[in-house]
Amino acid sequence: MNNNQFTLKPIGFVRSKLKSLEECPKQGQEGAPDAWIEIDHAFIKGLDDLEVGQEILILTWLHLARRDELKIHPRADKQRPLKGVFAMRSPHRPNPVGLHKVEIQEIDPVGRIRVYPLEVIDGTPVIDIKSVKEELGEG
Amino acid sequence: MNNNQFTLKPIGFVRSKLKSLEECPKQGQEGAPDAWIEIDHAFIKGLDDLEVGQEILILTWLHLARRDELKIHPRADKQRPLKGVFAMRSPHRPNPVGLHKVEIQEIDPVGRIRVYPLEVIDGTPVIDIKSVKEELGEG
Repeated sequence: MNNNQFTLKPIGFVRSKLKSLEECPKQGQEGAPDAWIEIDHAFIKGLDDLEVGQEILILTWLHLARRDELKIHPRADKQRPLKGVFAMRSPHRPNPVGLHKVEIQEIDPVGRIRVYPLEVIDGTPVIDIKSVKEELGEG
Repeated sequence: MNNNQFTLKPIGFVRSKLKSLEECPKQGQEGAPDAWIEIDHAFIKGLDDLEVGQEILILTWLHLARRDELKIHPRADKQRPLKGVFAMRSPHRPNPVGLHKVEIQEIDPVGRIRVYPLEVIDGTPVIDIKSVKEELGEG
């Protein structure tokens, strides 16, 4: 094993009505609202060929997560036994990359896409966008 | 937009019979072999509760990819029109994070898991492991 590290740069940020972690559901399907993804001007050409109605995966950097947790209580419920973070959807993990399956609702040519549902807080950095169909052969 | 950057650390590395990019299929389902994921000792506890037969998502850092491409020819076929990288599964993208849906074949308690199919080259850094069921509600 070596100690290489890699540098991620945000390609954009989430703009959401969710302003505090307490408001954020654990899963998009649990009542999360739509949100805008504002893409940095430098990366707008990479959005070409995305379409309204398409399912995509948004990869985020969960900037408020702890990185030193390897076992967590599911749904932060201390009654439930500890589980390994790689088996769970906890934001707290060594590299806090969030994965969110959403549908494109609207594309604004200045470099914003509106997606639904998205359960992360306003200001969360976005690091990648991927096509569900290309990645998983579905959607 | 700010210029924050984030630091990823590998949690492990892929050990595969694929030793050159030319040998790697474009998709796991296109004839990729099984591979071992060797997890760094510091992170082994995070593997608890993963099970043989389970579908997981391996997130990799595609260390040989170019990061300055925003439009690519699908399947590197120059006959095909350029497409935006966020709509495609190209490894070449601003943050070259690879996403691979695989099934766990074997778990070795010293911190190795054998998965199938995996189309990346030997030595590729692994940055996260996620449960398909937890992330996508399926599998």
